[in-house]
Amino acid sequence: MSPESNARRASTGLRARRADAARNRARLIVAAANLFDERGPEASLDEIAKRACVANATLYRHFATRAELILAVYAEEVTELAGLAEQLRSASDPGQALTDWLRAFVRHVTEKRDLALALPDNLDGRRGVLFADWHATMHTAADRLLKRARTAGTVRRDVRAADLLALATGIAMTGLPESRLDALLALARHGYATPIPAR
Amino acid sequence: MSPESNARRASTGLRARRADAARNRARLIVAAANLFDERGPEASLDEIAKRACVANATLYRHFATRAELILAVYAEEVTELAGLAEQLRSASDPGQALTDWLRAFVRHVTEKRDLALALPDNLDGRRGVLFADWHATMHTAADRLLKRARTAGTVRRDVRAADLLALATGIAMTGLPESRLDALLALARHGYATPIPAR
Repeated sequence: MSPESNARRASTGLRARRADAARNRARLIVAAANLFDERGPEASLDEIAKRACVANATLYRHFATRAELILAVYAEEVTELAGLAEQLRSASDPGQALTDWLRAFVRHVTEKRDLALALPDNLDGRRGVLFADWHATMHTAADRLLKRARTAGTVRRDVRAADLLALATGIAMTGLPESRLDALLALARHGYATPIPAR
Repeated sequence: MSPESNARRASTGLRARRADAARNRARLIVAAANLFDERGPEASLDEIAKRACVANATLYRHFATRAELILAVYAEEVTELAGLAEQLRSASDPGQALTDWLRAFVRHVTEKRDLALALPDNLDGRRGVLFADWHATMHTAADRLLKRARTAGTVRRDVRAADLLALATGIAMTGLPESRLDALLALARHGYATPIPAR
């Protein structure tokens, strides 16, 4: 066999192993997200590996500690929420798009808060970085949808993204069932006061 | 001295002692409320007695445990909030009256939540009774102000007192500084959406 074909074969094997590893990692994150939702941040790592259909050793090769796995699940969720905001930027009703995204945000805070709080403080400052990234990403997402809705004339001119996110976070923190959370979001959208002329 | 004047003197002495005791109890509750605000639910009982200008023994005669003192402070605050609602029922602007009361409610939740949570679970079920009373009193207060504002046409017809209280609780739970809490209350009042016709 020529040295070129050997090199080609080695490179193909490497690509296949890398694709395998990426697939396993993705599967582990999905399984972990589901099990953390079902059992909380203390869900068994063995069970996560089992649900992802990978060996325990594979889980530990990808995520040396529970904290690493939590960070990955959290980062994935943030990426998804940012992706949803991107999608919603082309929705036909910009006001409804903002509300839809805020509802997803409320659900995210409700479900992932315990997970974030379960992270140890001593991750070499990575928890702080995670929270700062989260904050910046959420603000950018909300602000873009807000500006589009404002241009369309469907939100008040004096509403700020930071206040919207804070109010939505408060709604999530009530810990009420989803139907009540939707009622509170509707209240936040339309206000409790009888409408006065738009500002 | 006649037996009648003896009896009269004894009765006068009893009344004076009772008035003294009531005054000391009220002073202790005020001092405790202030020190709990400043130092949290673990504030020193000796310091509370000192600030109330009563002997330590007097404090323990009125409140055998820290939990009894917390219960009294909490009950006092609930009575005050209910009293404020009564007062605001005769305010000239019913919509503003509702908002003013909600602001006081947000401040109450912000300040007194740690106190309520510091109560031990094993108070013979009294913690549960306190929370149920609190809930019923707050609901009655909010509902009366809401109905008056609705009659005056300054709140939407579909707004429920339970949702208003839940949203205000969420706002308090964000833990933001007071100026931000006011901004969130204003957002809740007017909504983020451009006004649509009143329902």
